[in-house]
Amino acid sequence: MTTNTQQSSNTEQKIAQEALRKAYTRETEALVAEINQQASCITDINDIWALSDYLNSQRYNIEGKYDFQEPTSVFVLAQLVKEKWLTLDELNGLTPSTKAKVAALAKMS
Amino acid sequence: MTTNTQQSSNTEQKIAQEALRKAYTRETEALVAEINQQASCITDINDIWALSDYLNSQRYNIEGKYDFQEPTSVFVLAQLVKEKWLTLDELNGLTPSTKAKVAALAKMS
Repeated sequence: MTTNTQQSSNTEQKIAQEALRKAYTRETEALVAEINQQASCITDINDIWALSDYLNSQRYNIEGKYDFQEPTSVFVLAQLVKEKWLTLDELNGLTPSTKAKVAALAKMS
Repeated sequence: MTTNTQQSSNTEQKIAQEALRKAYTRETEALVAEINQQASCITDINDIWALSDYLNSQRYNIEGKYDFQEPTSVFVLAQLVKEKWLTLDELNGLTPSTKAKVAALAKMS
């Protein structure tokens, strides 16, 4: 038997996970487009190593940010809003309190 | 004052270094062409991570193989001949003994 609080928390997690997947798709599609464009400008080996460094940093960034195994935290959602991979409107369904936390954190540097 | 043996050794090093630069140019130009081609086939994020893994392994391979600060060894030359970045003809000027060592090592697996 689950309590109302648990049900509400599960619903919030589902909404948060869905938002996370949406942001992941957007961010990875943008990276694919960016690499297609960058790769066409590669003319020497230094461009190749610069691309390699860039891909390593992007992988570290993306794999660190999107953890689909862990409950999605307000910090991750706030980061995605700040980076414009998500809008606050896409977090409708979260409790007003959670959404307010995300909005406040997204405004911080 | 340098001895004949030292002069001969310096000449061999110059020839070996020149061969190394030639192989480096060929191998890195081939990699640039390969990445230009591969990058045009990237359609999703898994292709991007596969490209990143490939670039890391190529960098490890190339930076490990071409050390322009160190005297060039017969082992490195043999590896380059084996990998077809150099031909034995391009090592003319090395002593017959050195060239024979490179040729023998290049035949080994």
